[in-house]
Amino acid sequence: MSPHQPLERIAQLDLERRQRTGVPEAVFAEGKTGEQVWKLLKELASANGVALATRVDPQQAGEAERQLGREFVVRHDVLSRTVTVWKKNHEVPPTGGEIAVLAAGTADIPVAEEARITAELMGCRVRRYYDVGIAGIHRLVEPLKEISASTVSALVVVAGMEGALPTVVRGLVGMVVIGVPTSTGYGYGGRGEAALMTMLQSCAPGLTVVNIDNGFGAGATAALIANTVAASRPVSSSTQHATAHAASA
Amino acid sequence: MSPHQPLERIAQLDLERRQRTGVPEAVFAEGKTGEQVWKLLKELASANGVALATRVDPQQAGEAERQLGREFVVRHDVLSRTVTVWKKNHEVPPTGGEIAVLAAGTADIPVAEEARITAELMGCRVRRYYDVGIAGIHRLVEPLKEISASTVSALVVVAGMEGALPTVVRGLVGMVVIGVPTSTGYGYGGRGEAALMTMLQSCAPGLTVVNIDNGFGAGATAALIANTVAASRPVSSSTQHATAHAASA
Amino acid sequence: MSPHQPLERIAQLDLERRQRTGVPEAVFAEGKTGEQVWKLLKELASANGVALATRVDPQQAGEAERQLGREFVVRHDVLSRTVTVWKKNHEVPPTGGEIAVLAAGTADIPVAEEARITAELMGCRVRRYYDVGIAGIHRLVEPLKEISASTVSALVVVAGMEGALPTVVRGLVGMVVIGVPTSTGYGYGGRGEAALMTMLQSCAPGLTVVNIDNGFGAGATAALIANTVAASRPVSSSTQHATAHAASA
Amino acid sequence: MSPHQPLERIAQLDLERRQRTGVPEAVFAEGKTGEQVWKLLKELASANGVALATRVDPQQAGEAERQLGREFVVRHDVLSRTVTVWKKNHEVPPTGGEIAVLAAGTADIPVAEEARITAELMGCRVRRYYDVGIAGIHRLVEPLKEISASTVSALVVVAGMEGALPTVVRGLVGMVVIGVPTSTGYGYGGRGEAALMTMLQSCAPGLTVVNIDNGFGAGATAALIANTVAASRPVSSSTQHATAHAASA
Amino acid sequence: MSPHQPLERIAQLDLERRQRTGVPEAVFAEGKTGEQVWKLLKELASANGVALATRVDPQQAGEAERQLGREFVVRHDVLSRTVTVWKKNHEVPPTGGEIAVLAAGTADIPVAEEARITAELMGCRVRRYYDVGIAGIHRLVEPLKEISASTVSALVVVAGMEGALPTVVRGLVGMVVIGVPTSTGYGYGGRGEAALMTMLQSCAPGLTVVNIDNGFGAGATAALIANTVAASRPVSSSTQHATAHAASA
Amino acid sequence: MSPHQPLERIAQLDLERRQRTGVPEAVFAEGKTGEQVWKLLKELASANGVALATRVDPQQAGEAERQLGREFVVRHDVLSRTVTVWKKNHEVPPTGGEIAVLAAGTADIPVAEEARITAELMGCRVRRYYDVGIAGIHRLVEPLKEISASTVSALVVVAGMEGALPTVVRGLVGMVVIGVPTSTGYGYGGRGEAALMTMLQSCAPGLTVVNIDNGFGAGATAALIANTVAASRPVSSSTQHATAHAASA
Amino acid sequence: MSPHQPLERIAQLDLERRQRTGVPEAVFAEGKTGEQVWKLLKELASANGVALATRVDPQQAGEAERQLGREFVVRHDVLSRTVTVWKKNHEVPPTGGEIAVLAAGTADIPVAEEARITAELMGCRVRRYYDVGIAGIHRLVEPLKEISASTVSALVVVAGMEGALPTVVRGLVGMVVIGVPTSTGYGYGGRGEAALMTMLQSCAPGLTVVNIDNGFGAGATAALIANTVAASRPVSSSTQHATAHAASA
Amino acid sequence: MSPHQPLERIAQLDLERRQRTGVPEAVFAEGKTGEQVWKLLKELASANGVALATRVDPQQAGEAERQLGREFVVRHDVLSRTVTVWKKNHEVPPTGGEIAVLAAGTADIPVAEEARITAELMGCRVRRYYDVGIAGIHRLVEPLKEISASTVSALVVVAGMEGALPTVVRGLVGMVVIGVPTSTGYGYGGRGEAALMTMLQSCAPGLTVVNIDNGFGAGATAALIANTVAASRPVSSSTQHATAHAASA
Repeated sequence: MSPHQPLERIAQLDLERRQRTGVPEAVFAEGKTGEQVWKLLKELASANGVALATRVDPQQAGEAERQLGREFVVRHDVLSRTVTVWKKNHEVPPTGGEIAVLAAGTADIPVAEEARITAELMGCRVRRYYDVGIAGIHRLVEPLKEISASTVSALVVVAGMEGALPTVVRGLVGMVVIGVPTSTGYGYGGRGEAALMTMLQSCAPGLTVVNIDNGFGAGATAALIANTVAASRPVSSSTQHATAHAASA
Repeated sequence: MSPHQPLERIAQLDLERRQRTGVPEAVFAEGKTGEQVWKLLKELASANGVALATRVDPQQAGEAERQLGREFVVRHDVLSRTVTVWKKNHEVPPTGGEIAVLAAGTADIPVAEEARITAELMGCRVRRYYDVGIAGIHRLVEPLKEISASTVSALVVVAGMEGALPTVVRGLVGMVVIGVPTSTGYGYGGRGEAALMTMLQSCAPGLTVVNIDNGFGAGATAALIANTVAASRPVSSSTQHATAHAASA
Repeated sequence: MSPHQPLERIAQLDLERRQRTGVPEAVFAEGKTGEQVWKLLKELASANGVALATRVDPQQAGEAERQLGREFVVRHDVLSRTVTVWKKNHEVPPTGGEIAVLAAGTADIPVAEEARITAELMGCRVRRYYDVGIAGIHRLVEPLKEISASTVSALVVVAGMEGALPTVVRGLVGMVVIGVPTSTGYGYGGRGEAALMTMLQSCAPGLTVVNIDNGFGAGATAALIANTVAASRPVSSSTQHATAHAASA
Repeated sequence: MSPHQPLERIAQLDLERRQRTGVPEAVFAEGKTGEQVWKLLKELASANGVALATRVDPQQAGEAERQLGREFVVRHDVLSRTVTVWKKNHEVPPTGGEIAVLAAGTADIPVAEEARITAELMGCRVRRYYDVGIAGIHRLVEPLKEISASTVSALVVVAGMEGALPTVVRGLVGMVVIGVPTSTGYGYGGRGEAALMTMLQSCAPGLTVVNIDNGFGAGATAALIANTVAASRPVSSSTQHATAHAASA
Repeated sequence: MSPHQPLERIAQLDLERRQRTGVPEAVFAEGKTGEQVWKLLKELASANGVALATRVDPQQAGEAERQLGREFVVRHDVLSRTVTVWKKNHEVPPTGGEIAVLAAGTADIPVAEEARITAELMGCRVRRYYDVGIAGIHRLVEPLKEISASTVSALVVVAGMEGALPTVVRGLVGMVVIGVPTSTGYGYGGRGEAALMTMLQSCAPGLTVVNIDNGFGAGATAALIANTVAASRPVSSSTQHATAHAASA
Repeated sequence: MSPHQPLERIAQLDLERRQRTGVPEAVFAEGKTGEQVWKLLKELASANGVALATRVDPQQAGEAERQLGREFVVRHDVLSRTVTVWKKNHEVPPTGGEIAVLAAGTADIPVAEEARITAELMGCRVRRYYDVGIAGIHRLVEPLKEISASTVSALVVVAGMEGALPTVVRGLVGMVVIGVPTSTGYGYGGRGEAALMTMLQSCAPGLTVVNIDNGFGAGATAALIANTVAASRPVSSSTQHATAHAASA
Repeated sequence: MSPHQPLERIAQLDLERRQRTGVPEAVFAEGKTGEQVWKLLKELASANGVALATRVDPQQAGEAERQLGREFVVRHDVLSRTVTVWKKNHEVPPTGGEIAVLAAGTADIPVAEEARITAELMGCRVRRYYDVGIAGIHRLVEPLKEISASTVSALVVVAGMEGALPTVVRGLVGMVVIGVPTSTGYGYGGRGEAALMTMLQSCAPGLTVVNIDNGFGAGATAALIANTVAASRPVSSSTQHATAHAASA
Repeated sequence: MSPHQPLERIAQLDLERRQRTGVPEAVFAEGKTGEQVWKLLKELASANGVALATRVDPQQAGEAERQLGREFVVRHDVLSRTVTVWKKNHEVPPTGGEIAVLAAGTADIPVAEEARITAELMGCRVRRYYDVGIAGIHRLVEPLKEISASTVSALVVVAGMEGALPTVVRGLVGMVVIGVPTSTGYGYGGRGEAALMTMLQSCAPGLTVVNIDNGFGAGATAALIANTVAASRPVSSSTQHATAHAASA
């Protein structure tokens, strides 16, 4: 007989974090087995109604059916490598918050989508503008006009390679910009290093940064800001817009 | 006769940036002569009513009297290494926004103060809690209670060495945290590198980061958020609190 | 005929190291063939009664049966990637020493288990507390109470990502903490770099560090301390607790 | 009138840390003004009887007389760059713990002395062996014989340049070794980087590491171990040896 | 008597390099004594008619009078830290080549000026546009219109901090851009590292890069291109523009 | 129904870039699906007559037939990992520009070929000299003679390992050299880091650099220079040389 | 018809290098196809009698039979990853030079063997001492006695992890030591970085270093020294020892 | 009374190292006080007849007279920053060994001179060729002819910036080359990093490397080789050449 407590009993999960911090706990799937990922998702969704896993590879995602019962709805988004699990009939209530997500290149879209999905799970509306990188800066004009005319109160700007888009955008709008460097690029400064440096060196105040490829963190931060802004509005007239819930999957 | 246009004519200053981006342009004094710094401050203050310079060393600051006329009021804050210049009788109107600034150690206070001064110049109220580092985590309890009971809508958390304070704080509160690594520390990971890495690696969503020692950027971002939140409130009942203007210097 | 001495004769193994240093030599399997690993294990177990290999992949482990005779007992722990080999009927005598191993996240458990197994092979009792990371710091309270009430004389604290757990723990207990950064994390500071830096920059004296993922080194150090403490006790009344020997496998 | 709480009231000092963690808080003087250093020393010494500051430069040290009253005794050790302050008649009680400090080269002695002074302030006896680097490995023989015959229960081994001494020593003794890389060396791997890497890569289990030049941390850790060992001895017969107190200055 | 050849005889200077490579040899003053700098300048100017030294500090520059005879004309440009020496009555013949130099911030101007002076010494006409950084991208419009309407055939674009200006410019013009990162910036990616990475990662083909602060190399390359273009024009009608010669100093 | 605009509508492609910048947009295939690569190639070739993709792996290339209709001609160059797509009967008009491409070692040839193909698509003639590294510097003599006697107006010099070839070549010729470091090499400075550093540190003015393995950027820059030079020639008598068009595939 | 010279004609091989430099050219197989490797080997062996390829993987090696005719003898050494090709009946004449190769751990043996094979191909005799790392320094005694009593005139010392063996050895012998760091190790300083730094920082003059895993370079250098020493001996009485030729394979 | 052994008694100096290793111990002055340097020099010179200190700054050197008695002769070489101390009438016996020292640029000469002085103190003859960098490779021809015609048996080649000279030289001569990178250069790869990488990546076997600016190590290694070669010559007919002794100062 083993003298040790079983490993299962030792691990403790933080189910009340959402109430305390405004962001639900998510499962970072990288380095976990599919079994571990689905078990954690099930526990979190049972407690919170909805749960998110990021960096899920196809093999991990493929183990779903065996792991979840009929009381859950699952959506596996291949592009963003996320899995969302809802308790049946659970809906994320719209908060009235609104953000925008911009991506510089095609390779930045998966990270941008991770940010969008995260924000939607927090009840935010999300506008998307992709392939608007600085090598052709005239492509930014229309999107920024639309954003300025909207109720968007925070921007997520995703860029790899030289990573200059967040700086350029921040110089042209009035909202906070959350920059997300992506691990594109090659050679010196590749894998996101140049993009991260660029954003941290940026001379544009009002720009903050999350780690390379951290779409989840950026989406959560932007949604947190937008939700706080929306919560302080007298009557939130914009809560009718579509929200992310299981039925629309 | 020189065939070139005079250098003075070539340089152009961005005076309308505040309207466009919500943050006034500041002068980064490092690497400039005192004369350049004061000239830029004068131009900015003439146009905007108030102007800020960061990273000002005593020698640069000492050249003030010769450079500015009687229509300006100057405050040189030695601790934060900032200089603020107001046009006489100009006041920064309170926005009703409120933030809090936390600092882990004594060496982090100058950067924290740079953030505070920046936010106050943007019309924000600022609460300060210094010397609350994680080596004695029980010291955090009182400050976080006060913050949770206030109208604070964004936190600036400043930490050097191992830089873990922003993560710990973000796990305990409901607002966005702007982490500022400082260039304290020594040996491997010194000069702020460990602190920056820690904040970017943080497992706490809702935490974003600015570059090492960038108190100005953090204060501007937090104030921008708080001002947006305050602007969306129906009747801002908290605008009576003290604000930073020349008369209170 | 080759003019050179055979390679086998050239290599020399350090069988008496345990007597001299208090820690048995272990086989670092990475970069070795399965055959090399098992041959070394056999030699060491023959001489010392027990032998440990770390970083063993499934393919290396699968070659066991062919390599070892009936006079040995083998345990392959998949989670910690270790293989332990005992001479039949050999038992590790309990020393009365006791340590605790804490792990911040799920991904840190394999390294924590490597530390546990190492310490148990040195005759130590090991308490385990996993999934107690700083993002939810309230989870630490119970474990630290238990530890303080026990005979634990050294702690191994394993953490990846931002790596702040050892600092927090060290600020709350009276024993030496051996911090082990793990190669989790991504982007800037990933692969354990941020965690290592954080631990080395820590402002908590009484915290020392081993290299990234080096659970073996941390377990050996903690056990060495605990064994030294136990050896100096007048009558060791706690030697009845369970120990790691072949029969319990 | 300023709307802010005075900075003095905000800063909080951790006076009870010693009881909780076994190591007294020390003042890291680098980046602080002499005034700040002496003020902190005075507070700590008033509360604990004795206080230590590290990395004190001559200018900071020179401000002592003005800052401290007659009820304190001061010792400024130029070589180790430390300042120790005792309340008059306060003595550090000997614990019976004993450690040894080894240094590879002349340039490593200041860091070694910082470790020694720290350990002595924690009541430990300290043996010193300096200039025993690996380029002439025969010089190690005598010291290691002496250590093995003593009650030393932990070693601090300080080395810069290639930093191999702790590994060599750990391979020859039975106690835990705390390696301290120093910021000597030049070119590639200079400033302590090579020494730190070497120690972390070491193949000798039972060796742990603190950051570059962190003599304070190493001394505190070794003394903590030695004190724990001594505390578990039935009758500590070795408590008569000399201790560090103001009268011996 | 020394058995060695005198050091003076050993050193050999490459006076014919201009004919072979199209760029005159310049003296990199950093790390040389003022005496060495002036001696090398004198030899080069004697042979080539004109000579340039870069990175000259005031002390080195101050030793001029003693070192040079009356047959030379000297211009010390404090801003760009260059010294130019002409043989009396020597003029640099205009080549008809034309380049433009753009600088993002005030701190980038010294490097931009080093590029301008170098190009002028190679007979090029130089247009300058300073303080046109990307934080206020609308400031670029006028300069780029002027450049497109001119005979400029290569651009030098100087930027520190995040270093994105060369990419933006290259996306808007039809000429080769030589990017020069400058050692401005602080924290992560400071000292020009972020700017260099950004330029190398740039997604804009037709942008090449020189090392941090290497205004000389950028100016030489741009002038070499412009001179080659000008040399292939049937009748160079633009050679009347002003050139850099001693008389205009 | 999803509230979001379809991803396809969001992405915008920059078809007019060639007119504005002199270089056609290319598709960087790394990290894209084969389907994405071919769709982009089709759009670009439809608009511009010809399109290039770089870093194409065999699997991506293999999806061609399904993706393109009969109105296109495709050439997949395995060595350089490029795919070129022409509209049927489209020819790249020769510009009269001429460049040379030199490669130090066998491993550098793929990058050199990427540069060649890029330049040919811009209408340039390209001379190639491979395996002329500096370990046997006498091999450079013949090639450089040929180049000096030609109309070549820019050089691409490709080198990995220690990367010294561009410096040596630049010291011996009169044209601009574009250095391309390649990701060959191993150990310290491997993966192109040493080669990049060497080229940036080079003491040979007139040498500029692109990122590691960026043959496309180097070829585009050299061709842009050569085309500008050719365009300024009164009567381009050398436009009869062979050009890259679909018929020659 | 292509306007370019065929690639085969462009590449030039340096067959006379041996006469000029004392070391035959070798083929670095990494990143080359098997076909390229064997073609180069054939050319070199045809010209020089013998040829060596390093870093050959099994797949490359497996293509031998198809590539070489009957007039060659091949030896593929799996451990050292080398392939040697001799023209039939070609023998490497013994030079009388003698070196020794020491390796610290099992993982260092492949690199050590690459050094041995290289030196033997240059006509040197090689003594081998493996598994003599510094964690058990007493194992060095016998080997160093043997070496001191021999005609060995240069040592190759191979070590990974912390890389301290060359320093220790150099402090105990009278010959030049060529240190070879190997890419063993993990975490901070892994992949050979710590070992390389340690050797470069070494305080033992008479120790020089080659790049990580460069057994070929170390063996060539040591053999070059030993051959020079042997060539200056009046009558080389030790040339009867075994040499590496095809017949002994 | 202090309970500690005096520091003086603890430090031990390695006076017999020369006999064991062929190189006299030298004093690395950086980070030592002038008093420490002179005391060590005196001890070493008393024991060995001659002693060398490197990296001596003028202030340290200026303390000579007070420190040494009349029985010593001192030579302070400002350029190489060395101090040599001889016992009166002590001469270094010529060994008949001969080396050559080459330096690429003016800034490399101090390091080259440190190598020369070291080798001469070991009884070697030294030829010097300075300012022969690769930007003008034709300058190498004459020196290499002379060297090939001499009895030189090892080369020290010193280079900063891009550091390619040792590779080029090694490709053209038959002796071992010891490459010494120097800490010249700026920006990316500055402070010797690029030069060190280049030398380690070099494709020229027979080239080994010492750390940045380590002229002492390179000179010692080259002299050790040359002395070994000379010792094996039947009758050393070249021992009449000048040697470094006090009388020639």
